[in-house]
Amino acid sequence: MKATVITIGDEILIGQIVDTNTVSIARHLNSAGITVVEKSSVGDNAADICSAVGRGLDISDIVIITGGLGPTKDDITKHTLCELFGSHLVFAPAEAEHIRTLLDRRGIEFSELNRAQALVPECCTVLHNAHGTAPGMWFDCGTDGSKVVVSLPGVPFEMEHLMLDEVMPRLRSRFALHSIVHRTMITRGIAESVLAQRIASWEDALPGGLRLAYLPSPNIVRLRLSAYDVDRDEAAARIDSQFAKLHAIIPDNIVGYDDATVERIVHDLLIERKATLAVAESCTGGAIASKFTAMAGASAYFLCGVVSYSNESKRDVLGVDYDDILRCGAVSETVARQMAEGVRRISGADYGIATTGIAGPTGGSAEKPVGTVWFGIATPEGSCAVMRNSGTDRSQIIGRASAYAIEMLLAELTKKN
Amino acid sequence: MKATVITIGDEILIGQIVDTNTVSIARHLNSAGITVVEKSSVGDNAADICSAVGRGLDISDIVIITGGLGPTKDDITKHTLCELFGSHLVFAPAEAEHIRTLLDRRGIEFSELNRAQALVPECCTVLHNAHGTAPGMWFDCGTDGSKVVVSLPGVPFEMEHLMLDEVMPRLRSRFALHSIVHRTMITRGIAESVLAQRIASWEDALPGGLRLAYLPSPNIVRLRLSAYDVDRDEAAARIDSQFAKLHAIIPDNIVGYDDATVERIVHDLLIERKATLAVAESCTGGAIASKFTAMAGASAYFLCGVVSYSNESKRDVLGVDYDDILRCGAVSETVARQMAEGVRRISGADYGIATTGIAGPTGGSAEKPVGTVWFGIATPEGSCAVMRNSGTDRSQIIGRASAYAIEMLLAELTKKN
Repeated sequence: MKATVITIGDEILIGQIVDTNTVSIARHLNSAGITVVEKSSVGDNAADICSAVGRGLDISDIVIITGGLGPTKDDITKHTLCELFGSHLVFAPAEAEHIRTLLDRRGIEFSELNRAQALVPECCTVLHNAHGTAPGMWFDCGTDGSKVVVSLPGVPFEMEHLMLDEVMPRLRSRFALHSIVHRTMITRGIAESVLAQRIASWEDALPGGLRLAYLPSPNIVRLRLSAYDVDRDEAAARIDSQFAKLHAIIPDNIVGYDDATVERIVHDLLIERKATLAVAESCTGGAIASKFTAMAGASAYFLCGVVSYSNESKRDVLGVDYDDILRCGAVSETVARQMAEGVRRISGADYGIATTGIAGPTGGSAEKPVGTVWFGIATPEGSCAVMRNSGTDRSQIIGRASAYAIEMLLAELTKKN
Repeated sequence: MKATVITIGDEILIGQIVDTNTVSIARHLNSAGITVVEKSSVGDNAADICSAVGRGLDISDIVIITGGLGPTKDDITKHTLCELFGSHLVFAPAEAEHIRTLLDRRGIEFSELNRAQALVPECCTVLHNAHGTAPGMWFDCGTDGSKVVVSLPGVPFEMEHLMLDEVMPRLRSRFALHSIVHRTMITRGIAESVLAQRIASWEDALPGGLRLAYLPSPNIVRLRLSAYDVDRDEAAARIDSQFAKLHAIIPDNIVGYDDATVERIVHDLLIERKATLAVAESCTGGAIASKFTAMAGASAYFLCGVVSYSNESKRDVLGVDYDDILRCGAVSETVARQMAEGVRRISGADYGIATTGIAGPTGGSAEKPVGTVWFGIATPEGSCAVMRNSGTDRSQIIGRASAYAIEMLLAELTKKN
């Protein structure tokens, strides 16, 4: 079973927004064994929308569209689909009532524009949008009615609930689906080209039907094995047995599997061990705290974060020695250690980690160029700090330094005694 | 002049990565007056790549491709383009030398895989990738050689430099380009449908050639006016005069223009007034601190952030009264106020803002459901707190609550006395 995903909106073509909707849609479809053969983005333009939907129906069985369902004049998806399928708009009283209730709750009056949102093509099945005012639409089409076009709002949260609650159950009951199985092994500490050489003979011996992909990111390379159109359990077992062979080749470089991020692996380890964490950040500015607290359940171990941006806050909140700051500079081994020790002490956490560096674009010197970051870690056994140059661009430095600090904690949690 | 952007990689179709490359490419093209008519993503599959490139050449003059240029076996873009253009691979000694230098610096041995990265189709112009090991490629094609296909690596940082340093200068000198002008007005405090009604007569009277789009996000609606194929200065003046009319209709709801985020507007205001800020976060977990510190120059005003996740850290670091936490709960007006006052006091900042709420998915109650967030603000004149329900999903709650806290500060900074 094949699908095409189409996003509609000039804001995508001019680069005003990052598209995260198709990521989520592709995952949902994949999990049910549906292969996404193409994604495309077109503007708020009837001819381009029709041509994209037409091509989607040519090359696939399922076309999922997001965007262009808002109440304003630039939103034309509904009218365009209505014309494309030779239908006309009818009023859906239940949807109108729902829209009125949502607006009431926000203290907004129900207007003509909102009433127009309750108009839907007569030929479609309405997909109730519990979290928003634009209903989703399901069209049965193709010459023998065997294909499906689904139109969803572009608001990520609304789209997500509609996919989960309305679209996926219908697709599962409508089509007899084979499975696609992806599993990903997460490695650290080996560059992509070196890794490829080290595992070359394993890769060459992979059985037919298994496909390998390399996904490199800073410090981490993900290896993904995929099997298409298969029995789920049988394919999962085949992939597991290949990963077991790989484990024998690079036993010390595997940090996790599948969607696990390094912070998720640390999160699970801390909860499992009933250990607690506190974070002191200067150059990363809250990015490390954000990564942990974004995960549900973080309150079990995350006690406190301090973004000590000024030297005074390093002294007053974390207890860093002010003379040391003046003598060694805020970006130094001793300050990184004292920050980690300080946040561990004031919070009573088991582990404290700290960053202090020069995120740029200004503030660098010959001795400490932009990108210089010191990382401190304090544990029940003591503390230490290491330095790493983390790049040249502010967002890159913040991203890499956050990732490295969390990796350093992972190394501490998984070290062999 | 029209362009198509194609991203290649199974990881995009299965939803393993978020595509940010095409956002950046679209912006570069737009800034030079080139309209992106379609974006598409296909897998690492020769037939799909050929068909996407062929369609790109049918509907546009310029095709920009990213991805599939790595050293590993799943990367087939180079071979596929070579076959498509009836060429063969030749060895580029200068590129090989550059790759060897880059690898040396990282202590990695130059291997056969790396040598293969220095092979390029004979018919292309090599685009030197100063920041990475995969060269970019420029192909002149079309029946009369008037069209262009460009292939770039998928690593965002490398792609970005190649676009900036190699591709855009060549496109500018190759094509006589008209301009596309986009300007965006940022409004707050009016829901999209209400705004559309309030400005309906202005919208209806817009002159031909100007196109309006509504881009709603939590609490903020962006209004974008676009003019295509125009003289830049003349179009900018026409848009400015329309925005001036709009200003008269909604004078109190305009907070900025173009790419300005609310945090950028606050950032500029704080620097202009030489005022300082400290942030105390519970449920937002560092997201507010991150937004400010992501901006270069934040150290001029951002003194300190505290992510006081545990009750003890609210007491020990911020000085919140523990009896009040027990009596009113950590998510309460009094705790939000004391957090804002506390972080202002310990940092010596002019403004303190605070969040405390229930981000979920657990921890809610009938009285304080998931999504309940109290926002505190402390200023030289005093302090107060307000409550807002910020959604039902953890990431949504964190995102909305961060946005609202910063908006509350903006309202304070721009209030009329």
